[in-house]
Amino acid sequence: MFRDATAVEPSSGGSGYDARILDGWDIAGNTNGGYLLSIVGRALCDATGRPDPVSVTAHYLAPGSPSPVNIDARVLKQGKRFATASATLSSPDRPLLAVVGTFGELAEPGERAATTLHVDGAPPELPPPDECVALVDPENTPPFMQRIDLRLHPADAGFRSGEPSGTPRVRGWFRLHDEEPVDTIALLCAVDAFPPTAFNARLPVAWTPTLELTAHVRSRPAHGWLACSFSTRFVTGGFLEADGEVWDSTGTLVAQSRQLALVPRG
Amino acid sequence: MFRDATAVEPSSGGSGYDARILDGWDIAGNTNGGYLLSIVGRALCDATGRPDPVSVTAHYLAPGSPSPVNIDARVLKQGKRFATASATLSSPDRPLLAVVGTFGELAEPGERAATTLHVDGAPPELPPPDECVALVDPENTPPFMQRIDLRLHPADAGFRSGEPSGTPRVRGWFRLHDEEPVDTIALLCAVDAFPPTAFNARLPVAWTPTLELTAHVRSRPAHGWLACSFSTRFVTGGFLEADGEVWDSTGTLVAQSRQLALVPRG
Repeated sequence: MFRDATAVEPSSGGSGYDARILDGWDIAGNTNGGYLLSIVGRALCDATGRPDPVSVTAHYLAPGSPSPVNIDARVLKQGKRFATASATLSSPDRPLLAVVGTFGELAEPGERAATTLHVDGAPPELPPPDECVALVDPENTPPFMQRIDLRLHPADAGFRSGEPSGTPRVRGWFRLHDEEPVDTIALLCAVDAFPPTAFNARLPVAWTPTLELTAHVRSRPAHGWLACSFSTRFVTGGFLEADGEVWDSTGTLVAQSRQLALVPRG
Repeated sequence: MFRDATAVEPSSGGSGYDARILDGWDIAGNTNGGYLLSIVGRALCDATGRPDPVSVTAHYLAPGSPSPVNIDARVLKQGKRFATASATLSSPDRPLLAVVGTFGELAEPGERAATTLHVDGAPPELPPPDECVALVDPENTPPFMQRIDLRLHPADAGFRSGEPSGTPRVRGWFRLHDEEPVDTIALLCAVDAFPPTAFNARLPVAWTPTLELTAHVRSRPAHGWLACSFSTRFVTGGFLEADGEVWDSTGTLVAQSRQLALVPRG
């Protein structure tokens, strides 16, 4: 269960929270960044006493790997509607993530109508999940991709066979296994769960490590598949941005994300 | 000078940096958020020993007003190319901003060609600055707008006379007065300098306080006017995002920004 894999508990050492980076949430040996952010998200929801992340930013300081970790949560403001907190997630060796976020209580799917004032966008057009490309080849699938249920748009999956689409975009479906509901913490994982947009660009770039990721959560998602889209408009200055949108099964935007990634000099 | 108005010095009290929120950088009595972020940016560039902000996020905790402030900079990682640091900017009364950022050394305008790999976008189409709308009416101009030189696209300036365009977008030119060069710190001010996109939307919304602002800086800007564009696609769940782009006089994207603002219940 994702919920168990991201669980935190007040630190027995006195300060902050303890958690554990589990084995099996990695890609090429490095723990997925959205999974790490979800652990911090749980700690900061507890520290602030709020159920949902509203805006969360992580700067990635070092790659994670299975180990015990500590989250030194600091609540900076307790307001009426929102609370803001920062944290560093550290392994016994070194700090891995620096996070700041604002937390609150977001609407349930049934409560949204009154606050939907302007929508200039739509969910990505995707074939049904069963007609999309599941990343489940046991020979080639990174462990992380076996922990979530992810289905790529066939037009965006060509990079797997050496035929990138040429457009730095990745679209697909996301859900957790065994019908585990996606809560607002799991959305922090969803926004970093897809293969990099650069895989579909014809660029002299192999890997684009994330420098920083910001997620905005607008609402709790309805049950069911999430339709996700990630695209890059600017690969300049040694950086690229990837803008993400996550839409739930009612066709509502539940999260936006933007990450800044490094484009290593080839 | 913007540089002097955002100056910081090592705290005489021992910890972090001291600065001063100056009079005259406010709108409706509240100090501009980009100006506050620039003060923190200067402190963190000094603390990390890096010349440029690369990715900086601020959560706005309370409105600022003229006062002495302290910035408690904490360097979280000193890497080879980048350093990451966090800070809280506090007035004598309370914390105002929570910031986390990564800093490094960005390219000069002449050094960009090799790293420009993909550009899917263009500067906003703007009439020349002299044919745009300067916000200099001494009766109606917020003090902050007299500290910078900002020219709105005529099509986006109708809200001033009660005729919003109906599109939540604001485009225009930005520069500092007296030909003061815009450095990468001043870009942190530029991305929060324009009137809110909501002013041009026909929404039952008067003011949209910023919850969080993230700026990505791609390059040092060339001298001259900056062409800026801010637009909003989703006003949902009690929030709106405003996505900004800042292009320099060579037609290069030098910064992207996204802020999450509150849409107060009307």
